[in-house]
Amino acid sequence: MPVETAPPLQSKPARVWTRPHLLDLESLSAEEIVMALDTARALKEVSTRSIKKVPALRGKVMVNLFFEDSTRTKTSFNLAAQRMSADIVDFSVSTSSVSKGETLRDTARNIEAMGIDVIVIRHRVSGAPHLLSRIVKCSVINAGDGSHEHPTQGLLDVFTIRDHFTRTGRLKQTGDASKLFAGMRVAIVGDIANSRVARSNVWALTKLGAQVTLVGPATLIPGDFRKLGVEIAHDFDAVLPRVDVVNMLRVQFERITSSMFPSLREYSHLFGLTAQRLKLASKELLVLHPGPMNRGLEITTDVADGDNSAILQQVANGLAVRMAVLYLCVGANGAAQRSV
Amino acid sequence: MPVETAPPLQSKPARVWTRPHLLDLESLSAEEIVMALDTARALKEVSTRSIKKVPALRGKVMVNLFFEDSTRTKTSFNLAAQRMSADIVDFSVSTSSVSKGETLRDTARNIEAMGIDVIVIRHRVSGAPHLLSRIVKCSVINAGDGSHEHPTQGLLDVFTIRDHFTRTGRLKQTGDASKLFAGMRVAIVGDIANSRVARSNVWALTKLGAQVTLVGPATLIPGDFRKLGVEIAHDFDAVLPRVDVVNMLRVQFERITSSMFPSLREYSHLFGLTAQRLKLASKELLVLHPGPMNRGLEITTDVADGDNSAILQQVANGLAVRMAVLYLCVGANGAAQRSV
Amino acid sequence: MPVETAPPLQSKPARVWTRPHLLDLESLSAEEIVMALDTARALKEVSTRSIKKVPALRGKVMVNLFFEDSTRTKTSFNLAAQRMSADIVDFSVSTSSVSKGETLRDTARNIEAMGIDVIVIRHRVSGAPHLLSRIVKCSVINAGDGSHEHPTQGLLDVFTIRDHFTRTGRLKQTGDASKLFAGMRVAIVGDIANSRVARSNVWALTKLGAQVTLVGPATLIPGDFRKLGVEIAHDFDAVLPRVDVVNMLRVQFERITSSMFPSLREYSHLFGLTAQRLKLASKELLVLHPGPMNRGLEITTDVADGDNSAILQQVANGLAVRMAVLYLCVGANGAAQRSV
Repeated sequence: MPVETAPPLQSKPARVWTRPHLLDLESLSAEEIVMALDTARALKEVSTRSIKKVPALRGKVMVNLFFEDSTRTKTSFNLAAQRMSADIVDFSVSTSSVSKGETLRDTARNIEAMGIDVIVIRHRVSGAPHLLSRIVKCSVINAGDGSHEHPTQGLLDVFTIRDHFTRTGRLKQTGDASKLFAGMRVAIVGDIANSRVARSNVWALTKLGAQVTLVGPATLIPGDFRKLGVEIAHDFDAVLPRVDVVNMLRVQFERITSSMFPSLREYSHLFGLTAQRLKLASKELLVLHPGPMNRGLEITTDVADGDNSAILQQVANGLAVRMAVLYLCVGANGAAQRSV
Repeated sequence: MPVETAPPLQSKPARVWTRPHLLDLESLSAEEIVMALDTARALKEVSTRSIKKVPALRGKVMVNLFFEDSTRTKTSFNLAAQRMSADIVDFSVSTSSVSKGETLRDTARNIEAMGIDVIVIRHRVSGAPHLLSRIVKCSVINAGDGSHEHPTQGLLDVFTIRDHFTRTGRLKQTGDASKLFAGMRVAIVGDIANSRVARSNVWALTKLGAQVTLVGPATLIPGDFRKLGVEIAHDFDAVLPRVDVVNMLRVQFERITSSMFPSLREYSHLFGLTAQRLKLASKELLVLHPGPMNRGLEITTDVADGDNSAILQQVANGLAVRMAVLYLCVGANGAAQRSV
Repeated sequence: MPVETAPPLQSKPARVWTRPHLLDLESLSAEEIVMALDTARALKEVSTRSIKKVPALRGKVMVNLFFEDSTRTKTSFNLAAQRMSADIVDFSVSTSSVSKGETLRDTARNIEAMGIDVIVIRHRVSGAPHLLSRIVKCSVINAGDGSHEHPTQGLLDVFTIRDHFTRTGRLKQTGDASKLFAGMRVAIVGDIANSRVARSNVWALTKLGAQVTLVGPATLIPGDFRKLGVEIAHDFDAVLPRVDVVNMLRVQFERITSSMFPSLREYSHLFGLTAQRLKLASKELLVLHPGPMNRGLEITTDVADGDNSAILQQVANGLAVRMAVLYLCVGANGAAQRSV
């Protein structure tokens, strides 16, 4: 668990977004999550226009402070910012003063002194965004911290689930955000222990009332996840027939040398999503993957590109969610303005 | 020859630009080439203004997908896009998921899912842009693929030739695009076999009616170029007096270890353009080079910076040509819009 | 001393900014320095707005040509340009044709041919910006050249001093720019010999009438600095009680293997600014540092973050100064326009 997690807020109705930061989903209420999803739904339309640009964040400045490589997430944030007319500054780490031994604190305070509105940070240390939010006065958005959280990924995953099952009629509108996903059963499959995607998904899904099953080798699922109200299972074939959604985590090759990790062949055999295995599932199963995929390992190409897959919709929705998060945290009526 | 070249279209009058992509010059008609040149001529004026910006591509998004380093070409595309108010996203390869083993297909479809309008691709594999254009729905512009084509370089070279010789009076206006360069004699000098610049030049020049001579060591000019209607020669001194234009290809150092390549000293002696050799040529000879130059190797400094050289005009024209290509393919009335 | 320094101009009243370039502070008159400071003061307000953007440089293009890493200075220039609506092109060196052996001359002339307005250059060779300014017709701004000058750093330092001591009442307005800092005593502490920050500070401070003392190990202060009208001292403790400002230079680790440099422990003991040492100084002492800091080496954390420190104000002021320099050199009424 991260060292620097803020204590969870009491859930309460969120009519107005009051957070200048998005550090995790753990501290968000169900109402706040739904508010972010609703904002994303409204902003998603902008990306379908011929002129994909609105002036919502004109004259605002977003800084990318990425201590780990991530072209996809960074590109998504950049497009989200551009689409709302914000300016972007890349403070990439390989060439920055950080490599001269400067601390995160000095780097952040220096960036902030230049007059910026929001820092999007990715860092290999869990809790780094929380630390940053206590150092600077501008907004901080967590784009992934260690094995802790990746909140915009969690939001885009629940956005995709809600969007899909609202269209199929499976989900009904409800005034109670904590029951939005009542009856939805979601399996998250893979290396749960090291996955910030899994952790943010668990928070978002359980807050919205879904039943979550974590599936993977016993060595890769810490037992204390049960405290979060989720089920743990090791037999994917037994779980698959009972769920509406599977979220197939990426095998992270930098971890497979660990003694915790089974052989790739065994992993693929037990936990890979193949067309054969898909036959065990409901025909309406929704297949998610945070990308980039290892085709043929955790998911086969026919499944990734098949009718059940919402993988490309996730990418499109990720952009909408990031536009929403930027808008809520730093827009003209955003929380950051009110807190000044 | 590239694996994935589209079959050449029949030449036909092109009153309206109908292509969402620019993949090669081989498949363009003479009329389409002239249309691109005319558009570039109109847009070139923007770069001479104090406020170098028009709203033609406002709200459009161009993605750079460069799998090979190219600051010059990328800068030219970036300036072209900015000058027409487009947004730009760099999807550089060293830091991207591609290095995590993601396929070109997944990378491209992910980028496209974010809602973009055009991908500018450079790839070491001939045919990669063609492949990409069959994967995505957005526009694709080839910024150089292997030893296949570099179509915007070909266009900027014929733009420079037309521009220069129209001003000198050597070229007359003609309603027949395929006779625009009738009587023009152009030598392309160097490592033809491995040059995408040469290949795009050959297509553009021959379509416009120029006589093309390829000059270089026998080992570096494949005989099947003759099928394209060009002459092959190995004695630069014999060719030089008879041509209006020489296009001096860059010696690519990554290739000179090949047994095909003569020693640098021999190459420079036989095929380098020196002030001494220039005396063999017409005083009106136009000297081109795609850059960056190896001064003292394929061209000497006095010639590169001399009166016959149009090398810096090529750079300026390259920007205008890229503005034109972006405008035609993705502008408000561009082909990509109509095909949606 | 740099090989390619322009001869100093005669000081004379500067009602209108006539320079297309900012190459050094040595050649600026006191009036020109004050004009830059006044412009920066007016533009600083933009960074405090909710919409941090003015159209002053719309349609202008700034190119970053950085041959040395510098995220902080580059970010500051980028934000300055964006804040005035200029377009930015990064011509980073690791991926550029420069690594293919292209000369600075060819690189610069190629960039210029694309129609740009200003090149911001950082180069390890002293005088490179001066050389560049003779090659191109566009504006050139020196962002640090070797151990020669870093003029925008010098300007932001005097801006910070003026700003601070005007607010405390220590500095009075004066019509004579060369007496603006009359009576101000400034110590610059560290490796003077290799510091372009020190050199630009010396020029700016002495032109404005301040008394400057250079403090450091004898091996690191060339005696010919005395010709510039500054004092040289080696006992920091003796100097500290007599000055209004200390500018603590960064220890550059790439130099400390030199036999000229004392051990880090000895350096820190003799020249580091600690809370203990600070007791020797006036309570009103202003502490500057160009960043990034080696906390615990040339300055301790309590001093860096203490009441006397203006280090974060320097960063904010740096942005304002760079906006001013861009505005004066390339704005609509800037020198570059008039010289065309």
